[in-house]
Amino acid sequence: MPFKRKDLLGIRDLEVHEIEHILEVAFSLKEINTRAIKKVPTLRGKTVIHLFYEPSTRTRTSFDIAAKRLSADTYSVTASTSSIVKGETTLDTLKNLEAMKPDIFIIRHSASGTLQRLAQHTTASVVNAGDGMHEHPSQALLDMMTIKEHKNRLDGLTVLIVGDITHSRVARSNIWGLTKMGARVVVCGPATLIPPRLEAMGASVSLHLREVIPEADVIMMLRLQTERQQQMLLPSLREYAIYYGLDAEKLKKAKNDVLIMHPGPINRGVEISPEVADGPHSVILDQVTNGVAVRMALLYLLAQRQ
Amino acid sequence: MPFKRKDLLGIRDLEVHEIEHILEVAFSLKEINTRAIKKVPTLRGKTVIHLFYEPSTRTRTSFDIAAKRLSADTYSVTASTSSIVKGETTLDTLKNLEAMKPDIFIIRHSASGTLQRLAQHTTASVVNAGDGMHEHPSQALLDMMTIKEHKNRLDGLTVLIVGDITHSRVARSNIWGLTKMGARVVVCGPATLIPPRLEAMGASVSLHLREVIPEADVIMMLRLQTERQQQMLLPSLREYAIYYGLDAEKLKKAKNDVLIMHPGPINRGVEISPEVADGPHSVILDQVTNGVAVRMALLYLLAQRQ
Amino acid sequence: MPFKRKDLLGIRDLEVHEIEHILEVAFSLKEINTRAIKKVPTLRGKTVIHLFYEPSTRTRTSFDIAAKRLSADTYSVTASTSSIVKGETTLDTLKNLEAMKPDIFIIRHSASGTLQRLAQHTTASVVNAGDGMHEHPSQALLDMMTIKEHKNRLDGLTVLIVGDITHSRVARSNIWGLTKMGARVVVCGPATLIPPRLEAMGASVSLHLREVIPEADVIMMLRLQTERQQQMLLPSLREYAIYYGLDAEKLKKAKNDVLIMHPGPINRGVEISPEVADGPHSVILDQVTNGVAVRMALLYLLAQRQ
Repeated sequence: MPFKRKDLLGIRDLEVHEIEHILEVAFSLKEINTRAIKKVPTLRGKTVIHLFYEPSTRTRTSFDIAAKRLSADTYSVTASTSSIVKGETTLDTLKNLEAMKPDIFIIRHSASGTLQRLAQHTTASVVNAGDGMHEHPSQALLDMMTIKEHKNRLDGLTVLIVGDITHSRVARSNIWGLTKMGARVVVCGPATLIPPRLEAMGASVSLHLREVIPEADVIMMLRLQTERQQQMLLPSLREYAIYYGLDAEKLKKAKNDVLIMHPGPINRGVEISPEVADGPHSVILDQVTNGVAVRMALLYLLAQRQ
Repeated sequence: MPFKRKDLLGIRDLEVHEIEHILEVAFSLKEINTRAIKKVPTLRGKTVIHLFYEPSTRTRTSFDIAAKRLSADTYSVTASTSSIVKGETTLDTLKNLEAMKPDIFIIRHSASGTLQRLAQHTTASVVNAGDGMHEHPSQALLDMMTIKEHKNRLDGLTVLIVGDITHSRVARSNIWGLTKMGARVVVCGPATLIPPRLEAMGASVSLHLREVIPEADVIMMLRLQTERQQQMLLPSLREYAIYYGLDAEKLKKAKNDVLIMHPGPINRGVEISPEVADGPHSVILDQVTNGVAVRMALLYLLAQRQ
Repeated sequence: MPFKRKDLLGIRDLEVHEIEHILEVAFSLKEINTRAIKKVPTLRGKTVIHLFYEPSTRTRTSFDIAAKRLSADTYSVTASTSSIVKGETTLDTLKNLEAMKPDIFIIRHSASGTLQRLAQHTTASVVNAGDGMHEHPSQALLDMMTIKEHKNRLDGLTVLIVGDITHSRVARSNIWGLTKMGARVVVCGPATLIPPRLEAMGASVSLHLREVIPEADVIMMLRLQTERQQQMLLPSLREYAIYYGLDAEKLKKAKNDVLIMHPGPINRGVEISPEVADGPHSVILDQVTNGVAVRMALLYLLAQRQ
């Protein structure tokens, strides 16, 4: 079944069968990454441009490895070096790069919703690599892939997402995706970091981590931006760690086969303790490995359309 | 007919037949950029080094795409990260990189005339990607290609170049090139931004944009560096826009088939209004597209020589 | 004879036959860099990640050219753009990148000895591209290759290393390597820049450059970091140049066939005068050329193991 979209802007728009299809393709491409020769000619002669308005190593490198293992040529344009600093509009930057005939743009931007508008103005494919507090769809896809790999299903699982929900595009994309796929999502964090209207997205809310841990099949810890403290949204990092950090003691209350996830980079000792991050329940590095596979799948499906 | 030069340092040195040859090759290579597989093996195993002493996204990305679509391997050395900061001379940086056996250097430097000296000290080819206020030959070539594409000729046309002529390497390269090819060049801008001796280069001068617009087959707007205001060369951006900015009202006095060009990035509302930049006469994005083709032609011709 | 190591962390650990083997491979691969098509498919589909915690153009570009001429795909992660700034530990950064299935990491780090620890935590190969004041093994290998190329041997030669020995990983790696290979090493510099216990490494010490120059078959000048002056380790750059800078006058006392070397970038007029740096005894640019060959050899041997 062909993938018909020009862009991948968010999980919210995707149909269940589309998510299933992306994950299937990701599982089948994953094996390429363990070969002696980790390269297939699928995207030879395709041009992929990374257009990043926010710094990123992890996501950009993951997309870049995905693109090059499919034999695409890649280019990186970042806000600090680009003509953006000279006052050019984002749309003019995009239209100029588009005139050089790329096939796919991978864009990260600090403004929620900008990508929708950019995608409408280019015939090239646009992949959202994170837009403000809105969505980070490839992260949610790699998270779903990792859960499915370990649990063989998403349907019927309880996934607990813990931390700064308000500012998290990772949480938003996962809530859209996991609920679509039949999982139950519970979010947990301090009241100052929980946005309104999560119930309308299909998630339930708890303020007490210890209470909800026993129900979880998966616990997804979010990175705490330490600047939230200066914004008076947190009493202290120490207090945050006590109530919302996952450590060995809290983990005792969890199911025996619980999965511990984190989108990275982790703050050891803040939202997650070292013994949990490196412990037997942790699938954090599996997430990174699956990230390359999911991004290969996305690039492959979008390029195939053309 | 083979191209015999080692370097492309400026338009001033080129013979008419050389410009014609470059444009012919560019027109023939342009089609590669619209294929499903945008890649030919012509420069496989060639090493192209971008050596940029001034920031640039547009020009560097355009050269980089051109090089990779010809299958060259590319490397980027920029002033901010290179050993230049450690006090190494430009010539030592070049000689060191040369010892790694590159085929082509693409160099941007803030000092007019530096490239001539660098080119004499290396057996690799040197392409000028902009040197101070001196020349930006690949820009003039892509401009001439764009005019030729739309007008089928350069000979006999009147090209109006508007803005800060004094500080513009784009203007200088275009004046050398367009006059060689038989076009008439009129430059226009405030007296503080018009250098002396333009007549010796073959251009005529006007201080009144409204008066010269009706004669023009092509209007090439230059980017205004807003720092010119601090240098007391401009009364205000608003006043500049009124007298020298191109907007729909001034455009009414132009020929029906006038072409509007701009080397980018554009300052919307300063030297060009949005309705003109995005209007039916604008070929600004065609310039960008042709930029890749012209740069492919230059790299191809220089590599072929070796 | 296969190369059995997973990593190349330092010269100190290497056996004589391993150094000989690396140099032999480097001599045989060197010729690729002078071909019209400077590329062989040896490392096709291999992933090489540059992970640089200190800025570098020269070394990173040399490794990058080496990798791409062997057809590897390369990625660059630098401290300024990476998640390191977000407080991630070096080991977490490495483990995350490792989860993307690279074959070889090329790492530069400011802390002596960090690489040993990192290498133990990854199944990928680790190449030391400079760690603090500890080792810079690829530099010593290219230096030994350059000496061998010109002198046909290392055994029995006297190599004089001049400058800031204390802070020099280049000096340390060369002392380990050259003494292993049977050369006699004399280090020379102001007492404030000579560390204790060099004799235990096999080197002898002199404070008087003029006195030891006549014995030398090779004079290796080190770059003087001008910040040593602020640290009160030097009286003045001028005085340093008088006593420890190599100029034409001092060179008169040297053997007729002495080789002058420098790891670059050079400070003209400080540790070396222009007429010596550019003179007939200088093999400084040969060192750079051999650097690519040595790094090709290292990448080839490490990849072959897998």
